[in-house]
Amino acid sequence: MAYLNDNYLKLKAGYLFPEIARRVKVFCESNPDAAKRLIRCGIGDVTEPLPDAVIQAMHRAVDELSVRGTFRGYGPEQGYDFLRTAIATNDFRSRGIEVADDEIFVSDGSKCDCGNILDVFGNQNRIAISDPVYPVYVDTNVMAGHTGPGDEAGAYAGLVYLPCTPENGFVPAPPSDKVDLVYLCSPNNPTGATATRAQLQAWVDYALKHKSIILFDAAYEAYISDPAIPHSIFEIPGARECAIEFRSFSKHGGFTGVRCAFTVVPKALMASTTEGKSMPLHPLWHRRMSTKFNGVSYPVQRGAEALYTPEGKKQVRTLLDHYVGNAKVLLAGAKAAGLTVFGGVNAPYIWAQTPRGYTSWQVFDKLLNEANVVITPGSGFGSKGEGYFRISAFNSRANAEEVARRLQTLKW
Amino acid sequence: MAYLNDNYLKLKAGYLFPEIARRVKVFCESNPDAAKRLIRCGIGDVTEPLPDAVIQAMHRAVDELSVRGTFRGYGPEQGYDFLRTAIATNDFRSRGIEVADDEIFVSDGSKCDCGNILDVFGNQNRIAISDPVYPVYVDTNVMAGHTGPGDEAGAYAGLVYLPCTPENGFVPAPPSDKVDLVYLCSPNNPTGATATRAQLQAWVDYALKHKSIILFDAAYEAYISDPAIPHSIFEIPGARECAIEFRSFSKHGGFTGVRCAFTVVPKALMASTTEGKSMPLHPLWHRRMSTKFNGVSYPVQRGAEALYTPEGKKQVRTLLDHYVGNAKVLLAGAKAAGLTVFGGVNAPYIWAQTPRGYTSWQVFDKLLNEANVVITPGSGFGSKGEGYFRISAFNSRANAEEVARRLQTLKW
Repeated sequence: MAYLNDNYLKLKAGYLFPEIARRVKVFCESNPDAAKRLIRCGIGDVTEPLPDAVIQAMHRAVDELSVRGTFRGYGPEQGYDFLRTAIATNDFRSRGIEVADDEIFVSDGSKCDCGNILDVFGNQNRIAISDPVYPVYVDTNVMAGHTGPGDEAGAYAGLVYLPCTPENGFVPAPPSDKVDLVYLCSPNNPTGATATRAQLQAWVDYALKHKSIILFDAAYEAYISDPAIPHSIFEIPGARECAIEFRSFSKHGGFTGVRCAFTVVPKALMASTTEGKSMPLHPLWHRRMSTKFNGVSYPVQRGAEALYTPEGKKQVRTLLDHYVGNAKVLLAGAKAAGLTVFGGVNAPYIWAQTPRGYTSWQVFDKLLNEANVVITPGSGFGSKGEGYFRISAFNSRANAEEVARRLQTLKW
Repeated sequence: MAYLNDNYLKLKAGYLFPEIARRVKVFCESNPDAAKRLIRCGIGDVTEPLPDAVIQAMHRAVDELSVRGTFRGYGPEQGYDFLRTAIATNDFRSRGIEVADDEIFVSDGSKCDCGNILDVFGNQNRIAISDPVYPVYVDTNVMAGHTGPGDEAGAYAGLVYLPCTPENGFVPAPPSDKVDLVYLCSPNNPTGATATRAQLQAWVDYALKHKSIILFDAAYEAYISDPAIPHSIFEIPGARECAIEFRSFSKHGGFTGVRCAFTVVPKALMASTTEGKSMPLHPLWHRRMSTKFNGVSYPVQRGAEALYTPEGKKQVRTLLDHYVGNAKVLLAGAKAAGLTVFGGVNAPYIWAQTPRGYTSWQVFDKLLNEANVVITPGSGFGSKGEGYFRISAFNSRANAEEVARRLQTLKW
């Protein structure tokens, strides 16, 4: 008899965004007129067209595949050298950060990488995550059998939750006891908070002391404007011995539907066998990607490469300025509406407190019904997300301005 | 202390194809002149340009992403409806096979799917694989901890190996004892053998009797010309209750570098919890793909859809005729060279016996050095692959003809 993976049965309800989609659908079907003025600031999906440099590069790559002499079949599973070099040079070495080309693993998405990375780790690790948190970190650990059952608030036995609150600026300090793997995300999804150099140094020191590994999600690093905030964990001395970094082209290159991301695994990063022997993780991830993956679509890799050309960089800057401008408008609107707000400066997300007496799903329903605006309820990101909601800046400027206006019309 | 996944340390040497690449590289560097006449019939990678219908569709999709009004961000993780419908209609329902649109899960490759499918199964399953076999089935089970250590021939304790030999036409019969999961591949990689309807019915009957699940890899189904041979496991009555099917656009659409495939998980397919409760697998795979995957690149999905248009179908037929013609040339050449050969008729692979006294890696080295032809040594596919080598028909016609000639010049 074939057995299924029981751990899947521990997963709570649906993933957050399908539930939002369901409520929005019900609302739109019952209120066809209001549906016409609906503005979505829920899911963090880009709305603006791809940079022209990407469009041109993808067209050229597609044309290459139309001619025998330039046709390419299977590419290297870890990504083409042209893209690994462009990434390592532009995102790291030109900023004085030591990363070799072959420490870059090109993939089809950070969500995939964040989940797949667990393949190379043992099941005996003690795992820490922030609360609130991007749900994929939690769910993939549940699916891998690293947790006990979940409770009503969505917290799973066996995980170490690190509360993120206004008191710690939504950046948790290392715990007093030992954890083996810790997920950190800066700029943060959902809170929009960023970790300072000192905060990251404290985590690196902790990890080196305990031989822990930091899984650093920097999917939103391009939104950092404050020169004091690190873009990469590898800016912190010692991080090459204790960290893996996830990056994506989704949120600054507009690649959510095109699919390209990468993971940096330093060759100096070691982990332990069950018997206590220290070994490098780089060959394991290399093997994982060689065996369970077959590389990213060639035209997509050429598109990603184009983001690093002079024109590409200029066009990315324009895209970023657009979304950052939206965040500014939304932040000002939310403040003018009397809301207590966080984030939204070095990140495309605004993290707003729910007015007194409202749960985050009640705010969701009220905004949907009365302002026809979709946001994301904080409780979907963990129990410490209750009492907050996330406003996404991924939209047109006109919509951002309209949402800012509508927020101010609500009576609480 | 962070622990790594010890199971990776059980893996034998490198994956087969990197080892081939390494030997070829060494040869080319030491023999620059011979390198110029090198012909690669090793890895099963297509060589001919993409069908024009695909090129046009991808260009149109890239252009859509250049304009705000037609831009698309995140798509459905399971694939766009336009592609799921095209697949279910053309590959199944129009052939009288019952498959619903939402039983199709679009992915970035069959290699990925064959590995990832283990996510939804428990670790207590007894697993059977053919020998020789596509190495990904084995390696992903080793990585998931489903095996003991490997022996010198590359066989792992705990797996049930089903020998494929000339005696059984390289299609194994069900074993006398019980296995929970079994991988079947038809047309077969590496042997080029195809399973008859009666052979597949025997497997379906076995699986229904033992509540086993068949993981059916049909990546090469488009190469079947014999009308008596099933293209899909779902042509066999009862298969919807006991099988998952993997398909790919790689080998008939030329998509090895473009990356698109799909998996069919019938809603009637059940597996057991550890406590013995029977539950459908479809929601688990749906959840797996929602949480650890983010859909296939939009232009790629439009390219795949174009394979089902009237022009697309005609162009695929031309591509297939080309590779099938190569196989015919190679098969004739190998026979004329005195080799004992199998496959190569309903499959793009020729499975040749090594001349007496030669191991398969010795044949690899001899062909590389004396004929400047790259093949794949059979032992790379398992212990029962020793004594054979695989010749791939993916090449230009001129190269296939040249290889056929060179095979006849060798002295054994």
